[in-house]
Amino acid sequence: MDTLPRVRHFDAELEDLKSQLLEMGGLVASSVHRSILALTERSEDLAHQVFRDESRVDQMEIQIDDFATRLIATQQPVARDMRLIVVAIKINTELERMGDLAVNITERSLAVMHLPRMDGDLYRQINELASLVEQMVLTVLDAFVKQDAEIARELMTSDNSVDKLRSAIGEELIARMQKDPAIIPRALNLMFNSRSLERIADHATNIAEEVIFLVKGVDVRHRFGAERELDTAAVAKPA
Amino acid sequence: MDTLPRVRHFDAELEDLKSQLLEMGGLVASSVHRSILALTERSEDLAHQVFRDESRVDQMEIQIDDFATRLIATQQPVARDMRLIVVAIKINTELERMGDLAVNITERSLAVMHLPRMDGDLYRQINELASLVEQMVLTVLDAFVKQDAEIARELMTSDNSVDKLRSAIGEELIARMQKDPAIIPRALNLMFNSRSLERIADHATNIAEEVIFLVKGVDVRHRFGAERELDTAAVAKPA
Repeated sequence: MDTLPRVRHFDAELEDLKSQLLEMGGLVASSVHRSILALTERSEDLAHQVFRDESRVDQMEIQIDDFATRLIATQQPVARDMRLIVVAIKINTELERMGDLAVNITERSLAVMHLPRMDGDLYRQINELASLVEQMVLTVLDAFVKQDAEIARELMTSDNSVDKLRSAIGEELIARMQKDPAIIPRALNLMFNSRSLERIADHATNIAEEVIFLVKGVDVRHRFGAERELDTAAVAKPA
Repeated sequence: MDTLPRVRHFDAELEDLKSQLLEMGGLVASSVHRSILALTERSEDLAHQVFRDESRVDQMEIQIDDFATRLIATQQPVARDMRLIVVAIKINTELERMGDLAVNITERSLAVMHLPRMDGDLYRQINELASLVEQMVLTVLDAFVKQDAEIARELMTSDNSVDKLRSAIGEELIARMQKDPAIIPRALNLMFNSRSLERIADHATNIAEEVIFLVKGVDVRHRFGAERELDTAAVAKPA
């Protein structure tokens, strides 16, 4: 028996691994969507849908880890295949963390559901932030499946839009809290929700870095360290 | 040539992998310590030490990933050794994220260094929180190196103390902001710092779960999902 059937079988298993991650990513993206809709539309049904889907995401994480580990053990892949599987294990962890953050948002959404609503414009902004973030989750998985470093690189730019929008929401909320201390608990709720969205975007960026590493063999994970240090110095010593 | 020398060599490499993670963990724990001291002692020197150590942590992450991946490729480990290496790769990511959070705390500490100080009791509480968290980082690495599931399990309990202390600090800060809106920016700074500490503790808990999985072969990662859902229902519908 020649090795061709085994090789084909292994390729099919790698494709299966990718499909599982895609399915999990789709579930996570829809949880992000529902978590914020639960807040802005005051829907307990949507909130409970997120909790139900979380169990599924958790199961998938364990299943994907097992599958990937078994692939390594039985196929003893080398070079690029090995790297693909290790990256899949990392993406799996990132997706599960995103799912946890969607659950955190949902918990916070439920906690304020019976309080008076905040200003509609704030909800519009946070919905916009959620849409950007959802799109990042889907785009980065597309980059992984296609092994397209260009898409992954573009995504690292759209992470900047998320940061800017989150900062704008944060500043707006601080100004409103200072004007009207009665809204502090609800404003903090929105502030933490927008930070959770930003963190989901950060996880998507982590995946983008892994995809670039996978495709190019270049590690871009810590490229931005030096820039951050400069920014900090600027914050600490304003002119 | 019999295989004994090769086996010994592999064991030595696994020990080396553990040592590298320990070294990285020690650096991360000291960064957590310094990040909060930079805030409460207003020390720019400590802050810059954290930034310098971050570069080292980032280098170590890449080096450990490479080392672990090479071990898998060259030694083709099976069963428990394979699991140990996959867990090491995951712990590596957790530690690097903790380091990033220490950097975030430090950036925020620098940003308020020239503003009036907050109440000393709050600083005492946040120092206490930082100590708990540092200790968790060191303890969980001890559990990993010794492959001791008992230590790992205890750690999951001390994560509860962290959550409680963080909640207490958060409530205190909300009360103070409502009384005196002028302190809102500084209070938010402390609130975000205490949440970052809590997130570091969460990463330590993630490692504890991996250690239990490694030792017992039991996956405890999502054991607490059902409990969380119940808590949420309680928050959403107060009696």
